[in-house]
Amino acid sequence: MSEVLIVGSLALDSVTTPFGRREDAWGGAGLYATAAASLLASVHLVGVIGEDFPQGALDALAERGVNLEGVERVAGGKSFRWTGEYNCAMDTAATLDTQLNVFADFDPQVPESAREAEFVFLANITPSLQLQVLDQMAGPKLVLCDTMNFWIESAREDLLSVLHRVDGAALNDSEIRQLTGTPNLCQAADHLLEMGPRFVLLKKGEYGASLITREGHFALPCYPLPNVFDPTGAGDSFAGGFIGFLAWLGQTDDDALRQALAIGTATASACVEDFSWDALLKLTDEDLYARYEELREMVRLEPCPLGR
Amino acid sequence: MSEVLIVGSLALDSVTTPFGRREDAWGGAGLYATAAASLLASVHLVGVIGEDFPQGALDALAERGVNLEGVERVAGGKSFRWTGEYNCAMDTAATLDTQLNVFADFDPQVPESAREAEFVFLANITPSLQLQVLDQMAGPKLVLCDTMNFWIESAREDLLSVLHRVDGAALNDSEIRQLTGTPNLCQAADHLLEMGPRFVLLKKGEYGASLITREGHFALPCYPLPNVFDPTGAGDSFAGGFIGFLAWLGQTDDDALRQALAIGTATASACVEDFSWDALLKLTDEDLYARYEELREMVRLEPCPLGR
Repeated sequence: MSEVLIVGSLALDSVTTPFGRREDAWGGAGLYATAAASLLASVHLVGVIGEDFPQGALDALAERGVNLEGVERVAGGKSFRWTGEYNCAMDTAATLDTQLNVFADFDPQVPESAREAEFVFLANITPSLQLQVLDQMAGPKLVLCDTMNFWIESAREDLLSVLHRVDGAALNDSEIRQLTGTPNLCQAADHLLEMGPRFVLLKKGEYGASLITREGHFALPCYPLPNVFDPTGAGDSFAGGFIGFLAWLGQTDDDALRQALAIGTATASACVEDFSWDALLKLTDEDLYARYEELREMVRLEPCPLGR
Repeated sequence: MSEVLIVGSLALDSVTTPFGRREDAWGGAGLYATAAASLLASVHLVGVIGEDFPQGALDALAERGVNLEGVERVAGGKSFRWTGEYNCAMDTAATLDTQLNVFADFDPQVPESAREAEFVFLANITPSLQLQVLDQMAGPKLVLCDTMNFWIESAREDLLSVLHRVDGAALNDSEIRQLTGTPNLCQAADHLLEMGPRFVLLKKGEYGASLITREGHFALPCYPLPNVFDPTGAGDSFAGGFIGFLAWLGQTDDDALRQALAIGTATASACVEDFSWDALLKLTDEDLYARYEELREMVRLEPCPLGR
């Protein structure tokens, strides 16, 4: 089994959904992705926290075998905080408050022990820091990056440099439209492939996800859930499940990427079933297997009976 | 091969998209659905037109073997007219003008020759007229209905009566949320199934379509198109392709419904590639076969390699 490096935020989230409110929930892209990936693979996490970040969250990760050497706790500092509220369809969160705190001066240092990791997920952080992380790696087999509207607008040149150096980019549809200036999603994905990556993971929220390569498209629906409790972390646990599975499998061909997308979809479905990472931490290999096979049955289609 | 009855509007549409404008294009739900279904099955069309409706459109349908006995031309009347404009993402049309004209007094009469048709598509018309059509049928094997926000609000009781008598309902996500008062799409589909139909076709525009039954979910993405020219008629040609295929196949089991959804998806993809029904009329069995098989490849997924 190959190892995974994940770089991203560790945060305290205050989240309101139609089903309730949770204050100071353990969150952040790095935390969600690590919780997801560590179910299948050995993960090194690089991030920064303040004095206020609960040791319990780190202990839970350590129990899953996560190497936390790269998590810096800043003495006297405060952790990244996000406050948000979801609408009743649970597809949009309004950000009510963001406090970068120690995340504003994040200077990711990849520990010696993590530099040989073959699979890397660069969660949503400043593109220049994503580059700084790549510079410290020995030569990974596969790098996946995330980004957001803010960096597309404010750090476009650095982001283009990142895209040149990664294998895959995970974006939602508004991000890919903004990045490429192209409303049509097929054309937008083709433009993004021209920027460097060999695959695009298009995250479509409740409509599922697509994998787009130069060879073609693959798509899966969301795993159907009658009760979505808190969508926070869905995209990050999707990416974490994706990269964790690839590291477990040790392969990166088209079939492996398709399977990884199914595992990411199953992982994200568990994430949104409870506040914070509560449901994600309870997820087992058996659950992933069952949801994967349900997704496979959901897209089962007999050959076309029409004549050629 | 079984026969199909389609009841719906025949209209003259003035459509503006980012790619151009077409005045008085041949359109309407009944016309799109009939053009789609008649590629595979023998179709009876019931609708109403004014003196201004071009004979050329009717001739084109007759050439495809469509029985037009049920199309009433009202002397001195004007046809239904719709004027709309699409946004640059092509996912929303603003209605600039609607003139019901002869459609306001539509009194659908199913000709004797069409009453034995085994497959019925009730396109988006007043629910009381959908009931009137069902009352005239001998006992169809499968009935699919469409509807819209206006009827959900203004004719709810009649619509519930329709839903009690049909096998399937084709709705988009905002319609199903409005009808059931449920934001979560899984729960909304379950509620709709409790209202009568044995399957729901959930139309998700550029995100594809789902088939939901009491046994489970099936979903396909959109057929990927780098150039969408005019989305008008996509939903109706999807439904027409769906019902036409079922009539061609003569089966209505779960595998048949899945295959029909793929054919509907392929048909709709052709519809949106040009203004009006221009691309739909050029579509061949071979094109449908090819797009179906491409869709099947798009959802191909190997078994889960994780242990149970």
